[in-house]
Amino acid sequence: MTTLLHVTASARKDRSLSRQLSNAFIDAWMRVEPTSIIISRDVGANPPPIITEEWIAAAFTPDADQTPAQRETLRLSDELIDEIDQADVIVIGTPMYNYGMPAALKSWFDKVIRVRKTFTFDLARGDFPLEPVMSGKKLVILSSHGEFGFGPGGVREKMNHLETHILTCAHYLGVEESHSISISYQEFGDGRHEASVADAFAAVPALVEQLALARSAA
Amino acid sequence: MTTLLHVTASARKDRSLSRQLSNAFIDAWMRVEPTSIIISRDVGANPPPIITEEWIAAAFTPDADQTPAQRETLRLSDELIDEIDQADVIVIGTPMYNYGMPAALKSWFDKVIRVRKTFTFDLARGDFPLEPVMSGKKLVILSSHGEFGFGPGGVREKMNHLETHILTCAHYLGVEESHSISISYQEFGDGRHEASVADAFAAVPALVEQLALARSAA
Repeated sequence: MTTLLHVTASARKDRSLSRQLSNAFIDAWMRVEPTSIIISRDVGANPPPIITEEWIAAAFTPDADQTPAQRETLRLSDELIDEIDQADVIVIGTPMYNYGMPAALKSWFDKVIRVRKTFTFDLARGDFPLEPVMSGKKLVILSSHGEFGFGPGGVREKMNHLETHILTCAHYLGVEESHSISISYQEFGDGRHEASVADAFAAVPALVEQLALARSAA
Repeated sequence: MTTLLHVTASARKDRSLSRQLSNAFIDAWMRVEPTSIIISRDVGANPPPIITEEWIAAAFTPDADQTPAQRETLRLSDELIDEIDQADVIVIGTPMYNYGMPAALKSWFDKVIRVRKTFTFDLARGDFPLEPVMSGKKLVILSSHGEFGFGPGGVREKMNHLETHILTCAHYLGVEESHSISISYQEFGDGRHEASVADAFAAVPALVEQLALARSAA
């Protein structure tokens, strides 16, 4: 049995292509493995509050020394991290906003990448003191880009701070394998966009089969 | 006379190194050109609300067709864009959080990069339909990194989604020249960190002189 954490980041509801794409992924997964558990976390509709100085101080206070107020400050972070802990596969449906994550998704990452909970810090490790606590998770990024050419070798490769940044962060959540499917050309609204939408939705069931098969073989 | 927009993004107040560094830049500038105007926008202390579907709909509605509610939805964005419009130099003091911008700073960018206000969109331009409305602005990024090696050729170059992402976004705010000074090794708290702090603060007056001299020569 597989647990999927489905994180959606678009500010848009029905009009969001990234939501449609990640919903298609979840639907396809449930057809292949109907007993899977889906945890839904809609940060687009309900952005986690942006971290404050009080939050940082609470996160850096050892658990045993935290005040009741600090424990309350960290409660949502605890809940969000627990969702990741439960997940075998993290599915992120997100638009590219201004060449990167929506602020809502970055706020989620800022709340879940947390010392002692999702990573440990030890200077005895030398110049690379951070290590993730969790391991073995798979990540699927399902995104929508207004422009195009954000992949390796693409004309806007160096302007892509979305998938690249998510991958950098996801390492600290125990992600060891990742896949991404993206829709491009949204702002152009032309035949290239239609083809990109068709290609992305066609790629979803194949990726689901590949991942679900790997899990049932494990 | 120069107008500087000073954007600060750290959730921390007195303990923030990026705030200390950008404050040092502003102080040095005022010593060189005391008649300058400073506009302060503390997004770390007061993060702009994360954009909503209603905000997106309002931003894409032609000005003449906007309802009073939509104009109210866009009021803060108008104000933030007006601050950029007034600025000759944009000074951003920001920490690196999880290898990129704090969500608060991304929320500011998501509120100020706005169709018809800071960029125009015209498919007649072909595959590059976006162009900035404003021009000739200078950007100074003053940042603090917990780790190190995020510059070109550095061991963590590919993990840097902070300065790179800010530069990509800043183009759409009319930025045509940029400079950055960063403090590294904060999490190591060792002699390398002390040296990095000293180097960064020493680099500030030189950069101020260079920029202020260029302005007085113009």
